[in-house]
Amino acid sequence: MKCTRCRAPAEVQLRAHNAAFCRPCFVFFFQRQVERAIESERMFGRGERLLVAVSGGKDSLALWDVLAELGYDATGLYVGLGIGSYSALSHQKAAAFAERRGLPLRTVDLENEGGLAVPAVAQVTRRVPCSACGTMKRHWFDAAAIDGRFDVLVTGHNLDDEAARLMGNVLRWQKDHLARQRPVLVPTHPRFVRKVKPLFLTSEYETAVYAFMRGIDYIVDECPNAAGATQLVYKDALNRIEAASPGTKLAFVKEFLRAAQPAFAAADRDPPRDCERCGMPAYGSLCAYCRLVDEMQRRATPRASAPA
Amino acid sequence: MKCTRCRAPAEVQLRAHNAAFCRPCFVFFFQRQVERAIESERMFGRGERLLVAVSGGKDSLALWDVLAELGYDATGLYVGLGIGSYSALSHQKAAAFAERRGLPLRTVDLENEGGLAVPAVAQVTRRVPCSACGTMKRHWFDAAAIDGRFDVLVTGHNLDDEAARLMGNVLRWQKDHLARQRPVLVPTHPRFVRKVKPLFLTSEYETAVYAFMRGIDYIVDECPNAAGATQLVYKDALNRIEAASPGTKLAFVKEFLRAAQPAFAAADRDPPRDCERCGMPAYGSLCAYCRLVDEMQRRATPRASAPA
Repeated sequence: MKCTRCRAPAEVQLRAHNAAFCRPCFVFFFQRQVERAIESERMFGRGERLLVAVSGGKDSLALWDVLAELGYDATGLYVGLGIGSYSALSHQKAAAFAERRGLPLRTVDLENEGGLAVPAVAQVTRRVPCSACGTMKRHWFDAAAIDGRFDVLVTGHNLDDEAARLMGNVLRWQKDHLARQRPVLVPTHPRFVRKVKPLFLTSEYETAVYAFMRGIDYIVDECPNAAGATQLVYKDALNRIEAASPGTKLAFVKEFLRAAQPAFAAADRDPPRDCERCGMPAYGSLCAYCRLVDEMQRRATPRASAPA
Repeated sequence: MKCTRCRAPAEVQLRAHNAAFCRPCFVFFFQRQVERAIESERMFGRGERLLVAVSGGKDSLALWDVLAELGYDATGLYVGLGIGSYSALSHQKAAAFAERRGLPLRTVDLENEGGLAVPAVAQVTRRVPCSACGTMKRHWFDAAAIDGRFDVLVTGHNLDDEAARLMGNVLRWQKDHLARQRPVLVPTHPRFVRKVKPLFLTSEYETAVYAFMRGIDYIVDECPNAAGATQLVYKDALNRIEAASPGTKLAFVKEFLRAAQPAFAAADRDPPRDCERCGMPAYGSLCAYCRLVDEMQRRATPRASAPA
């Protein structure tokens, strides 16, 4: 098998793109794909300050790497979720990457923010950990972006993430979610910044290969809470369909945005108002994060007063 | 495990319905489900003449059985596709069922209709067999329904069929197909009759159990041409999702019809005109069947004149 670009022996085959690449050409191809997504979706420009949410995994570190290579002003944001050794190792990977590349990294540690680590919240509120985690991450990402006066919040969601999320939204036809699933979310509140996903057309396999070829040291383990998550069931189903019909995931997400999403646009909700407590965007009187904090306190109180 | 209706020991568990049934109660439940679908979708009434497309498989025979039990005027239609021993056996099963129940069965044999059996058409036109077969079945179903002055053409598509078809339409966002995927198709041409799918909310597993409990002798083998068909890949993917989240298939199809399809209705195509050759509905100057016949003749002619 030969490289589609330079005819040298190929190291990686991409069936969805009907292409194969040698190492230098794949790195070029990958970076150009990301650059094209940024430009064609008008995600951000050279003069803007980017905050990149990094987890220590391959997607976010590969993305940060590409953004730095392309010359963007990209600061990393690591949110420590307090998930035992998984969080410790992921922080280490993110910090080591930042140091090696000389890139600025900000850290928020949830265990030191009122004791709101993911396992405690999931246990006390009896929520699925991924649901509690999502609420908390969104809050701290938004807060860090606005407090640090960044222009854009950048996340490493890849094609597999987007296709699995789209599958979940489609299987239950959640029109309001379908209306909002886009690679660029324009701020609907003064304390929101633009949110973008430059890897939305880049498969998980491609980011893994890129991270490997670029020598990026990332945390390989999945989050221990993700085991059995519905998202993984959708990913597995999509991978089986992709194996039978390469290119399905890409067409699913691209065609959705081009042809189908306009049909759901009317279902989008009203813009958020200010959370009465913290001032962040809220779809009720309190934002989702403050509601979570309240729920923690309500549930924790009787327990604290019981044994004496 | 006890029967949800009568507390007798259950023989079958339906996780999607969060229910379990003994044999008599399952038969009652199944027939009532079909009756409800017929009534709530206003598929047909007692006075109407139904033509039921029967393949000799479990779905169409179970459907014919239910329609006869519910007292509808239901004539069977068997279309012999000329797929070797598979067709021979499926015809035998359909004919034996009709005879045992004293139900009228009409038969169209494609091998005696200008030599247009599925394998020959697929070979000569180099189409996927399922595609050629679909065009031919649609033509002969429509023709038999209108020529026999039936009011309604009834097919045994089940929930798994509908969910897999919906998945295929969604993965490529085929808006025109999404606009037309309904359990009742109102005729858009004088030579179309109403087409309905009373099993569209009944899973393949449920029809298999019903056929077994009712002692229906059906052809168990899948059509030999179906091996590797994309439809089966979608069914497998959906079955895996269903196993993790029972009820997903039902919600996928039901919610689509309720909440999402109206958004695609605008994409529906114009009504068909008359085929210039045979007078059947056509979306061009010729109907799909006459185009297929033409293609067969074009491709067959040079070959016939070559060796001499």
